[in-house]
Amino acid sequence: MKTVHQRLLCVALISASTLVGACRSQHAVPSTSSLSSSKGTDVAALASWNDTTSRRSITSFVQRVTNPNSPDFVPPQERIAVFDNDGTLWAEQPLYFQFLFAIDRVKAMAPQHPEWTQQEPFASILRGDMKAALADGEHALLKIMFATHAGMTTDEFEATVKQWFANAKHPTTGRPYTEMVYQPMLEVLAYLRTNGFKTFIVSGGGIEFMRPFAEATYGIPPEQVVGSSGKQQFEFRNGVPVLIKSAEIDFIDDKEGKPVAIQKHIGRRPIAAFGNSDGDLAMLQWTAAGSGARMCVFVHHTDAQREWAYDRDSKIGRFDKGLDEAQSNRWVVVNMQSDWRDIFPPSSRP
Amino acid sequence: MKTVHQRLLCVALISASTLVGACRSQHAVPSTSSLSSSKGTDVAALASWNDTTSRRSITSFVQRVTNPNSPDFVPPQERIAVFDNDGTLWAEQPLYFQFLFAIDRVKAMAPQHPEWTQQEPFASILRGDMKAALADGEHALLKIMFATHAGMTTDEFEATVKQWFANAKHPTTGRPYTEMVYQPMLEVLAYLRTNGFKTFIVSGGGIEFMRPFAEATYGIPPEQVVGSSGKQQFEFRNGVPVLIKSAEIDFIDDKEGKPVAIQKHIGRRPIAAFGNSDGDLAMLQWTAAGSGARMCVFVHHTDAQREWAYDRDSKIGRFDKGLDEAQSNRWVVVNMQSDWRDIFPPSSRP
Repeated sequence: MKTVHQRLLCVALISASTLVGACRSQHAVPSTSSLSSSKGTDVAALASWNDTTSRRSITSFVQRVTNPNSPDFVPPQERIAVFDNDGTLWAEQPLYFQFLFAIDRVKAMAPQHPEWTQQEPFASILRGDMKAALADGEHALLKIMFATHAGMTTDEFEATVKQWFANAKHPTTGRPYTEMVYQPMLEVLAYLRTNGFKTFIVSGGGIEFMRPFAEATYGIPPEQVVGSSGKQQFEFRNGVPVLIKSAEIDFIDDKEGKPVAIQKHIGRRPIAAFGNSDGDLAMLQWTAAGSGARMCVFVHHTDAQREWAYDRDSKIGRFDKGLDEAQSNRWVVVNMQSDWRDIFPPSSRP
Repeated sequence: MKTVHQRLLCVALISASTLVGACRSQHAVPSTSSLSSSKGTDVAALASWNDTTSRRSITSFVQRVTNPNSPDFVPPQERIAVFDNDGTLWAEQPLYFQFLFAIDRVKAMAPQHPEWTQQEPFASILRGDMKAALADGEHALLKIMFATHAGMTTDEFEATVKQWFANAKHPTTGRPYTEMVYQPMLEVLAYLRTNGFKTFIVSGGGIEFMRPFAEATYGIPPEQVVGSSGKQQFEFRNGVPVLIKSAEIDFIDDKEGKPVAIQKHIGRRPIAAFGNSDGDLAMLQWTAAGSGARMCVFVHHTDAQREWAYDRDSKIGRFDKGLDEAQSNRWVVVNMQSDWRDIFPPSSRP
C-alpha cells in the first residue's frame, strides 16, 4: 500500500511543475451536428460518439447482456459497471483537479494561518511558486493535502467542496470543473443505466471530494462513489455527534487497490470497466477475469486540439502497460480524436 | 479501534461458554392468524406486526417522509435506511452465527490439518470442549477466526459460506440459519423499499460472511451490505487475478465504527436506523442528529418463549445504555413479545 501511495504522490508531485508552465488552452466547441446515418436508440443514446468500432463494441456488448435470449444474458442485479474518474469521466490536465482544489484552499485559508507566510510549502504556494512549494516532495504534498482535507467535520468539508465547485474555474479553459466532464461518457453512463446497469465510480480521487458533485454531474449517488479516503473519528462536539476527518490515510484506491476497493464496496465483480491509465489496469484485469461476457474500455487521450494528447510518457495518467495489454486482449481503446464527435458538454455560461 | 475490537472479541469469548450449556429451545410457530382490524396497505405490508404504537410509529414516519405535501417529505434518493444484522434482522443466540460457522469450519478443515489435534485452540474444539478452546482469550479467538476466514481467495470463501448456509442447522431450533431471520423485519425491509427507501445492512458481522445470503434472504444486494472486514491483497495465481483474504483486520464495524462505516460506504446520513444493542447506539445517534424527520428503532428481545429474552446484563447483544437513551429520546423500542405476532417465517422444511 505504501508503494502505491508513494507512486501516486510522486505522480502528482512531478506533474506539479506543469502547472507553472504553459498549458494548452484548446477546449471543446460543442457541436450541433446531426446524428450519424446509423439508426436506433443506441445511436441516439450515444449521440456524441461517431459511428466507429468503439461505439459498436459498446452497444453490441450491452445488447448481448440485456437480451434474455442471448447466451451472454446477465440478470440486472449483476450488471455492475465501474468508471475511473480522472481522465475517464472528466479531464485531469494540467493537474488532478483535487490538487488544484487543495491549492485554492491553501490560499483561502491563509488569513486564518498567518504562520503560513513563514512555513513551507505554504509560503511558496502563497507566493505562487509551485515548484518551490513541492521541492520537499511527498512530505510537502502530504502537508498540503492534510492542511486542506483534515481537521474538520465531514459536513464542513462537504460544504467547502460544494462552494469551490460553484465558483472555481479551470485554469486553461475557464470552465467550471463540472463542465470539464466528457459528454460521450455522460452518455455511456446514462445508456448503461437505461439498460439496467448500476454505475459506480472507482477512482484514486478522494471519496469525499467526488461525492458532492457526482450525483448532479454524473447521476451517480454517493453510495456508488468509491475513492481514496482518510481515517475518520466519531465524536461529540457540544453534544452533537460529528465525524472528524483526521490526518491519516485510510485507503488509496489506485492500481492494485482498485479491485480491493471494488470487493470492499460493491462485493460483486463488475461486468464492465472504464479507465484511461495504468492506474486502472488492475481494475480492468479483475473485471475481465470473471466468467461470461465482459467489457473493458480504455479512453485514450489523443486529441491535442480539443483536449490533451498523452499516454506512455505522461506524468499524469500514464497509459503504457495498459495500452499494451488492451491491444493484446482486444479491449476497447477509445480514440478521443476520431471516436468522439464532442468532448465536453455545452457550456452553461452565456 | 483496538479497544472496540477487543470488546467485540470479549463478548464473543465470554459468551462462548453458553454454547456448552443449556440453550432455550423455544422457537416460533408460524401463525396464520388474520390481519388486525386496522385497514390499509401499511397494515397488509406489516402483517406480522400487532396494531401497537411501534407499528404505528413506523407507518406514520414513512407516510410523512413520502408524502410530497408533507413538511417532512424526503426525496427518494435521500431515503436511506440502515439495519444492524445480529439481533435485529436475525437471531444472535446462543452465539453469533458467524462464530458457529467458524467452529463448524474448524471441524470441516481438521482432516487437512492433522497438527490441530495437538494445537490449541483447535484441539479443544475438535474434542467439543469450547470452554478450554477459548481459555486463551482473544488470542484463541483470533486464531479461530483467521484459520477459517483468511488464507483463501474471496471466491473460495464465498463458496464455503454458501455451502455452510445450505447445510448448517441452528443448534437449538434445528432451523437453517437463513430461517432464523425475523419475519416482521423482513416486512419492514420490503415496506421501506416499496416506499422508495434504499435499505443497507450495517453490522459488526463480517461483510463477506453476510453478502452470500443477504440478497436472497433480505433482498439486500452485496453493495448495500456493510460490515467488519479483513485486509485483502490483489495478486495473480497461475496467471489469474485473485483477491486473497489476509489474516489482518481492516475495519471493525461496531459502536463508534458504525457511523464511520456509514460515511465511508454510503456517504449520506440515514433517515432511519434499526438496531438492538449498545453496539448500534452510535449509529442511531448519528441518524437522529440529522435535520428533518428521523426514525430510530431498537428491537428489544423480550420473548423468552418464542425467541430469547435479554438486555442489560447480556454478554451478547447487551442493551443497556441504548435502552436508556431510547427512552429519553422517545425512540421506538419494539417489544418482541407484544409487538410481533410472528417471530420467524414459516419453515421451508416439511
